[in-house]
Amino acid sequence: MRIHGSRFNVETCGDSEVIDLTPSVAEHLRGSSIRNGLVSVFVVGSTAGITTTEFEPGLAQHDLKAAFERIAPKDGTYVHEATWHDDNGHSHVRASLLGPSLTVPVIDGRLCLGQWQQIVLIDFDTRQRLREIILQFLGE
Amino acid sequence: MRIHGSRFNVETCGDSEVIDLTPSVAEHLRGSSIRNGLVSVFVVGSTAGITTTEFEPGLAQHDLKAAFERIAPKDGTYVHEATWHDDNGHSHVRASLLGPSLTVPVIDGRLCLGQWQQIVLIDFDTRQRLREIILQFLGE
Amino acid sequence: MRIHGSRFNVETCGDSEVIDLTPSVAEHLRGSSIRNGLVSVFVVGSTAGITTTEFEPGLAQHDLKAAFERIAPKDGTYVHEATWHDDNGHSHVRASLLGPSLTVPVIDGRLCLGQWQQIVLIDFDTRQRLREIILQFLGE
Repeated sequence: MRIHGSRFNVETCGDSEVIDLTPSVAEHLRGSSIRNGLVSVFVVGSTAGITTTEFEPGLAQHDLKAAFERIAPKDGTYVHEATWHDDNGHSHVRASLLGPSLTVPVIDGRLCLGQWQQIVLIDFDTRQRLREIILQFLGE
Repeated sequence: MRIHGSRFNVETCGDSEVIDLTPSVAEHLRGSSIRNGLVSVFVVGSTAGITTTEFEPGLAQHDLKAAFERIAPKDGTYVHEATWHDDNGHSHVRASLLGPSLTVPVIDGRLCLGQWQQIVLIDFDTRQRLREIILQFLGE
Repeated sequence: MRIHGSRFNVETCGDSEVIDLTPSVAEHLRGSSIRNGLVSVFVVGSTAGITTTEFEPGLAQHDLKAAFERIAPKDGTYVHEATWHDDNGHSHVRASLLGPSLTVPVIDGRLCLGQWQQIVLIDFDTRQRLREIILQFLGE
């Protein structure tokens, strides 16, 4: 059993943009030569998160954003913003709720996702960001 | 150190049904012969999630469902539904928020859960489903 | 490749207290002698969760708590409480939504966190607790 680490960057627009990471993770999986095991997907930073979703425009551009708006409204009152003269209190809260890490099984060299299940980054920040995604493949 | 993969299926009723996976995961752990390490629990599909809870009827049948109803109401408006002539926009949103993966430590051949902490699948879809759970045990 | 397990306890006040675990996890990482791989962080129990956040007082003492109050209000109605003559229905719901596990990559002997990203425990229970945190380091 062995470990293979890799990383890549993603340019985002922020504002709860949902970005499909599946092609990149699959490409790095091929490069890892790991056939059976798992991959840990992690986003560096405290205003973005990782999950899976069906990556289609309705969910990705509207419905997920609407749910996060109920949980942590953009125009809500955040002590974080008052303290730091900042505008991204809601970004931090949304990111902490979603979480920065996801673990996906690998079998026979393939990510074990459903047909309509993609690995996504959601960037909650209020501006463009260059995000670093760290992958750790463990297996044989 | 080695890896042991296994999988099993679970029949669900959907509608945010909460199903205790702990006995199945414990049984597969015994079959893995792994004594120390961790297990990654993953549900395939984009309308279900994995977490832990105290598996008792109040939480499992009422209180968790009520919280998800606040976050993503069943009768809310979802662009996903308008696009696909579908009724499970809320199911996708709930599943993405909860996440499909969980990692549980294994020590001395046992899952390190609290006395009132069970590994659960929550199926948010709007119909019966046969769910595939993938386990990856890593350790020695 | 090898595994190194360790654990430590944290005293909490409950009531959605946010506690920075990063210094403890980093200390145990040094003790593990693992340079590249990952660490799985897990909290035992069904009324607490693990995530990352910028650990500053605005978010930690106010903003995160306010979001959880929207999702699962302390004074809401919980069947769990009626059943068990308990007051922590909201604690269970919040903990299940956040989740008890987090996976963080390790590269060159360091946790791959952002500059303003800390590993935190959130204790949602309604009283003081002594929490057990289990770490599993996997790598080489």
